[in-house]
Amino acid sequence: METIRVALAGRSYPVHIGAGAIDAEALYRPHLRAGRIAVVTNPVVAALYLERVKAALARAGAAPAIEVLVEDGEQAKSWPALEGVFDGLLAARMGRDGLLVALGGGVVGDLAGFAAAVYQRGIPFIQVPTTLLAQVDSSVGGKTAVNHARGKNMIGAFHQPAAVIADVGTLATLPERELRAGVAEVIKHGFALDAALVAWLENNMERLLARDAAALTHAVRRSCELKAQMVAADERETGARALLNFGHTFGHAIEVGAGYGVWLHGEAVAAGMVMAAALSVRAGLLPAADAERLHRLVQLAGLPVAGPALAPERYLELMAGDKKAAGGRARYVVLKAVGRAALRDDIDERAVRDAIAANVDGASAAAAQ
Amino acid sequence: METIRVALAGRSYPVHIGAGAIDAEALYRPHLRAGRIAVVTNPVVAALYLERVKAALARAGAAPAIEVLVEDGEQAKSWPALEGVFDGLLAARMGRDGLLVALGGGVVGDLAGFAAAVYQRGIPFIQVPTTLLAQVDSSVGGKTAVNHARGKNMIGAFHQPAAVIADVGTLATLPERELRAGVAEVIKHGFALDAALVAWLENNMERLLARDAAALTHAVRRSCELKAQMVAADERETGARALLNFGHTFGHAIEVGAGYGVWLHGEAVAAGMVMAAALSVRAGLLPAADAERLHRLVQLAGLPVAGPALAPERYLELMAGDKKAAGGRARYVVLKAVGRAALRDDIDERAVRDAIAANVDGASAAAAQ
Repeated sequence: METIRVALAGRSYPVHIGAGAIDAEALYRPHLRAGRIAVVTNPVVAALYLERVKAALARAGAAPAIEVLVEDGEQAKSWPALEGVFDGLLAARMGRDGLLVALGGGVVGDLAGFAAAVYQRGIPFIQVPTTLLAQVDSSVGGKTAVNHARGKNMIGAFHQPAAVIADVGTLATLPERELRAGVAEVIKHGFALDAALVAWLENNMERLLARDAAALTHAVRRSCELKAQMVAADERETGARALLNFGHTFGHAIEVGAGYGVWLHGEAVAAGMVMAAALSVRAGLLPAADAERLHRLVQLAGLPVAGPALAPERYLELMAGDKKAAGGRARYVVLKAVGRAALRDDIDERAVRDAIAANVDGASAAAAQ
Repeated sequence: METIRVALAGRSYPVHIGAGAIDAEALYRPHLRAGRIAVVTNPVVAALYLERVKAALARAGAAPAIEVLVEDGEQAKSWPALEGVFDGLLAARMGRDGLLVALGGGVVGDLAGFAAAVYQRGIPFIQVPTTLLAQVDSSVGGKTAVNHARGKNMIGAFHQPAAVIADVGTLATLPERELRAGVAEVIKHGFALDAALVAWLENNMERLLARDAAALTHAVRRSCELKAQMVAADERETGARALLNFGHTFGHAIEVGAGYGVWLHGEAVAAGMVMAAALSVRAGLLPAADAERLHRLVQLAGLPVAGPALAPERYLELMAGDKKAAGGRARYVVLKAVGRAALRDDIDERAVRDAIAANVDGASAAAAQ
């Protein structure tokens, strides 16, 4: 078991990483409270891991847990699903001294985390991520949200978990496509912040995709370390934390443009990173060879290197609705080198258009960089 | 103009109190941001004060404000109303650099404050309270919430405003009944925390109810000072801030038991304080003469001194659902003297039952203390 701490004054918390972590009652025990515990999960994850988590909680001495099931998939990040969680908690008379456990992937974590943020003005929660994407990214950092008809993650809160328990053993049951989507965020951490992680991925992609426990643990641990640093430095994303959005502005346009649920978030981020790197090259910030390195690594992970064939104008329109645009001025996360992302709000819109056009499905290979 | 500061590390804010405050552009100016401003209000308040607030914002140099209207009344503290606010903000493409202004009473402040707390994971907001209740209590301290079918204020956040602008001039248009309901919270501040305020109220109730500007300013200022101290000491109500709930556990049962909207919140708190004082006497904590003093002052304010004639069991049931009950154990805010409230979780349930029975409509005068 490895443990990383997210250092936040008064609200620091551990991220435990390792095979078998969800069974380790000692990891839950420090966070038990006087009131009840509710485990929020979905039917798919519940069938696989709910009894194990409940057994560990019982061994830790917790009161019998309330179970709240939400739908599987992005549509669960909605008002009605949130209402369902509140109904479950209120029906069970969960008080302000209760604890919530989010057991599942990014959707469950975002939804349950937001429920915990606002239930009776906030109760603590533990993240038990069971997808690679949630383990390397969304379970750490306290970003919680639900979607709105007019935009993804539009309603939410910064609410840090009391602990994260990332059991890489649970990744054994993860569908192949979701595993690869999680790898996209590991690639993101590498290209945005850590050249050594990029080199490691280039050498260990096969082991990672074969779900080798040591490789998974390394990828999760290093990702969480990098993310913990960014979160500790800038919890509310007023500055440097935004570097973690590398590939996400384009990725957001891909996800929405293709229709929610068609692309997985990680897939959209993968193609979005290729676009962002191409933009960095066009803006004269990044050597073309570094963008090619990203392109190859994304391919090696079996992730898409091109977005859906929509007009660049449509991309720009979708990106403008993205909340990363501040004060009307479009801000981009670009690369200045492998492992060194930067924020720029002086990017020429033509370069953006060109970077998109060259990296959508059907774009000629010659124009691809 | 008088200004009080709520001292919170990194998030301190001013509470400006005085006649004409809503027209003073200098009070808004320090809080303007790069993005747009949305004024959330209801049709009744909008007709009276929206143009004045917008004019002051314009003089302060703000971009033209977006207006978002919500229903008048407690039913506006709902999910659908919240959705309406989000729709308005998203349709106007309000970004994370926006600012929200809550113009109205407690309902608008609670709803708009919660919208600000979770819109794009939180944007700043200014409280411009236009009822006495909001000026002396709900606009200060950062408690925001909406109601749930299973309970009042069940979903919310602690989100401190960037500033409070309390214009006692706006109280000129307040319906008489709402003015009195606001006085209940001033009485609460006195009996819970400040014997001098109680004495002042005993001597100045007539001036206060006649809406004398100096009297109103004193009542608002002293209430805000007391509240600011409690909030600074215990922002998230894990301890001493709960003393401000004096009369509220009983009051909550009255509000719900009578059916939402039948009793005003302040009216329920008034009768609730009478019950809480009677309980304090029965528990041997408070001299009967002090409870009588509260009874007289509540009557002097034209507020109810007895709750609706429901069975004590029904009261207890409704109180158990109140979130003030921690870990299943009922906790009461009692009085040990005028101006000195205390939290107790060792109160005999029989004493509670008796205190209720003696202070509901139709209870015999002989049993009333």
